[in-house]
Amino acid sequence: MKPREARLEHLQGAPGARREPNRVPASDRSIRSLGRQTVKLFDPLKIGGMTIPNRIMVPAMVTHLCKEDGIVTQDSIDRYVRYAAGGAGLIIVEAMAIHQVKSGPLLRISDDKYIAGLRELTQKVHATSDSKLVPQIIHFLKVARTGWRQTADILSVADIDQIVEEFGDAVRRAREAGFDGAELHSAHAYTLSSFLSRANPRTDDYGGPTLEGRLRLIGRVMENVRRKAGRDFPVGVRFNGEEFIKNGYTVLDSKLIAVRLAEIGADYISLSAGGKFEDALHTPGQVLYPYNGYSGDRCMPGEWLPRALHAGIAAEVKAYLLSQGHHIPVAVAGKLDAPQDAERVVAEGLADIVGIARGLLADPDWPRKVRTGEADRIVQCDYCNVCKALDGTHRTVICALWPQGSIQAPQDDPSVQAPKWTQPESNVTAIAKESRVELKWPRAAGATIYQVYRAEAQGEPEMVDAVKVTFWVDNGVLGRHTYRYFVRPCAATGRPGQRSNTATVEVPAPSYMVTQ
Amino acid sequence: MKPREARLEHLQGAPGARREPNRVPASDRSIRSLGRQTVKLFDPLKIGGMTIPNRIMVPAMVTHLCKEDGIVTQDSIDRYVRYAAGGAGLIIVEAMAIHQVKSGPLLRISDDKYIAGLRELTQKVHATSDSKLVPQIIHFLKVARTGWRQTADILSVADIDQIVEEFGDAVRRAREAGFDGAELHSAHAYTLSSFLSRANPRTDDYGGPTLEGRLRLIGRVMENVRRKAGRDFPVGVRFNGEEFIKNGYTVLDSKLIAVRLAEIGADYISLSAGGKFEDALHTPGQVLYPYNGYSGDRCMPGEWLPRALHAGIAAEVKAYLLSQGHHIPVAVAGKLDAPQDAERVVAEGLADIVGIARGLLADPDWPRKVRTGEADRIVQCDYCNVCKALDGTHRTVICALWPQGSIQAPQDDPSVQAPKWTQPESNVTAIAKESRVELKWPRAAGATIYQVYRAEAQGEPEMVDAVKVTFWVDNGVLGRHTYRYFVRPCAATGRPGQRSNTATVEVPAPSYMVTQ
Repeated sequence: MKPREARLEHLQGAPGARREPNRVPASDRSIRSLGRQTVKLFDPLKIGGMTIPNRIMVPAMVTHLCKEDGIVTQDSIDRYVRYAAGGAGLIIVEAMAIHQVKSGPLLRISDDKYIAGLRELTQKVHATSDSKLVPQIIHFLKVARTGWRQTADILSVADIDQIVEEFGDAVRRAREAGFDGAELHSAHAYTLSSFLSRANPRTDDYGGPTLEGRLRLIGRVMENVRRKAGRDFPVGVRFNGEEFIKNGYTVLDSKLIAVRLAEIGADYISLSAGGKFEDALHTPGQVLYPYNGYSGDRCMPGEWLPRALHAGIAAEVKAYLLSQGHHIPVAVAGKLDAPQDAERVVAEGLADIVGIARGLLADPDWPRKVRTGEADRIVQCDYCNVCKALDGTHRTVICALWPQGSIQAPQDDPSVQAPKWTQPESNVTAIAKESRVELKWPRAAGATIYQVYRAEAQGEPEMVDAVKVTFWVDNGVLGRHTYRYFVRPCAATGRPGQRSNTATVEVPAPSYMVTQ
Repeated sequence: MKPREARLEHLQGAPGARREPNRVPASDRSIRSLGRQTVKLFDPLKIGGMTIPNRIMVPAMVTHLCKEDGIVTQDSIDRYVRYAAGGAGLIIVEAMAIHQVKSGPLLRISDDKYIAGLRELTQKVHATSDSKLVPQIIHFLKVARTGWRQTADILSVADIDQIVEEFGDAVRRAREAGFDGAELHSAHAYTLSSFLSRANPRTDDYGGPTLEGRLRLIGRVMENVRRKAGRDFPVGVRFNGEEFIKNGYTVLDSKLIAVRLAEIGADYISLSAGGKFEDALHTPGQVLYPYNGYSGDRCMPGEWLPRALHAGIAAEVKAYLLSQGHHIPVAVAGKLDAPQDAERVVAEGLADIVGIARGLLADPDWPRKVRTGEADRIVQCDYCNVCKALDGTHRTVICALWPQGSIQAPQDDPSVQAPKWTQPESNVTAIAKESRVELKWPRAAGATIYQVYRAEAQGEPEMVDAVKVTFWVDNGVLGRHTYRYFVRPCAATGRPGQRSNTATVEVPAPSYMVTQ
């Protein structure tokens, strides 16, 4: 018998069919620019003892740029320095483990010997910009290639005690290494999250059917972290706003989890979603990857999921926190790389910090370009999820839009020429077949990326894909409807050439409509 | 390369952290009454050639009140007459099959021999009230106890042709039987839905990677239905607003599906969600039940999912339809049984019709009680999902809140006395333990249901459960917080007795908070 709530806020959460978006001119919208609007996104924010210069966060993303030894490499440093140069306000360094369990290439903070490497990372980043740098601290349970995995109920209380101590030691090391704070990873498929989960299988004080039981581990960890790393060191917690698994928790619980975290002095909370083992698909001979089930779709949403898809969860959590008198900053991620979306999240108070993972991987200069009104030069993520596939197979995580062979995003270079079409007036051709439209265009000199834009008959053009090839197939059209397409060739740095001609095409009606 | 959209509406969809719900007095809110407010919910609506007297819909719910022969029984008739007496504007009769494949107890419309029974049903319902009566027409693929199931790609084009004809014949029979319209079941795990799905595995014209391919079967079915049953017979389509499975479609596709259905003359669309085979759990020896995975959680959400959880999807679809010039009515279901939520959905134009399945199963008099300002007498669904468990095991579907042994909701009887506490001043006791609160109370004379209400320190009381026993455990409390509880004893018809005393209790803080 679990209590529930019947607040009108849930309905309030419904998209207002009657609300109009803040319209910006179509030409700006099509390139997702904020133009010269006042932007709250660039207001600084105090988070405990640190002040982030703007509200843009790089969420933790595994890079696989270190080796099995877990020591920071030059490639690791280059990756984070690049984000700092791009101007993100808060950079969360990929998850680093508090313990020595075997894993793939994964950073470690499980011994004082790792401090030196981490200190080099913090020094290089801090020498680059005023971005704040925070490591994500993780404990995970064992997984085997057979599909077996260690679950929360297998741990003894002594094991739990050890985890509590290890988290405290790890955050103390993070402070010694010069980080500006630490983030406890209590989201997705990892230990803290498995305890917090509504699917927590334990029957003792650390689970059972009670929310307090599920909260006990993160509560003890926070207490130990404060004792070992100091009460003045900023510590945030990332957790799932919704689990998106069978019997998983929803915002009804995450509002309460957020209140508890605020009560025990977390300096910020960062909301993610899904990414659970419970619905992961097992490929024989491989360890479970918690991002390949439905909850993985929600965690790293592909192109078929809506933009800003978790902003509503954050808004409910934020509103509830405020109703309880808690002003703790809330971060949220999930397809928020359109500058207007990011701005709106902050301006409307849906959340305080906007996490943009794949969008900043694609273009670490996103913050700088948006701030200086050059959003039309952003290398826009197309949610192809090649990065996710690389992570899933333990390969170096890169963006498919980077130049071939690069393991880092290209440096912005103002001297790069804009790509040039050879025949500026007649580039794109579109052929409509029943059920699809096929586009093609010639190469443009200096282009490495082609952004494909589409508009419905009366609609505004939107980027529907970004490709390196010179053709594209649109499988999502409706027969009897007319579509317009154009292509923007872009240099690797995002500098765009002139947009192509617009190809207009009417898709034939399916036969069952013709006979009517 | 599937196109996508990047509209600001998705963000617009975020619950407005700054918006205030339309407050009604706390005493009314606690019993979810609309009081004497003007209510749009009771505006009639024209749907093609039929006019429904109000916006309240009984969605299709399997009853298992017929036998394997698929013929309407007196119990079937009693069930639907009961809804009609309660005043629902639109009653969708449980799914009836267009074909003769073996199944559990399931109504059939696969032969003219079924018309007589169905005609008796329509006559009895129409003799009762002005409720409109519409059968849900279904085709499903085969499932085996081994876990095997027939998938959409196994069907030949000849099989598809046959399904197209069978749908047309079935709807023609529905008209002959005196129904006011028909609804094609293109949601959840059934054939039409499997073709519409983004997970449609076919590679030919009826699938492939194109949306048009996925739409082809429903398009052909509609065309055949119109030809055989007449263009003036109201035909609606129920489909998923979101699939909630790995690689499943989202509102980005359902907006386009809705447009196509409007274009081919559907008279209404009815949005559901989830309920798929793809994530169903197989119990050895039983056939797959498509409502027991995560997508099943979304389809028939339990108490841990938010109220009005699909209103946002409906609002996006409705807004998109209007933007394209389509005024087709949209129905939506999903924990909408709070009268304020139902009213708001209609009043704000999020949808035109509110589907309330379990809420109307619990109390078929919901529409009448809300209309006459007696919402405090509603037997409120507590989302215990006993009805779902009965369906899943092919037993007669009843509501656990009905009197023991009843297979129909009790008749409302104004002469029933209100339940009476024996000691009106000191009934409920609440004991707080670390992590839970235990409530108990004595029996009240004449009570069959006890509604448990809870309020947080500053909050408004909400019903958190409805039970037939005299104790309740609250596992969802936070330590250091204070809660207030009271209990309302109700007769089987919903008539409430006086609420109990309010028990106030502070939950002890967990040890990690005490040491801070």
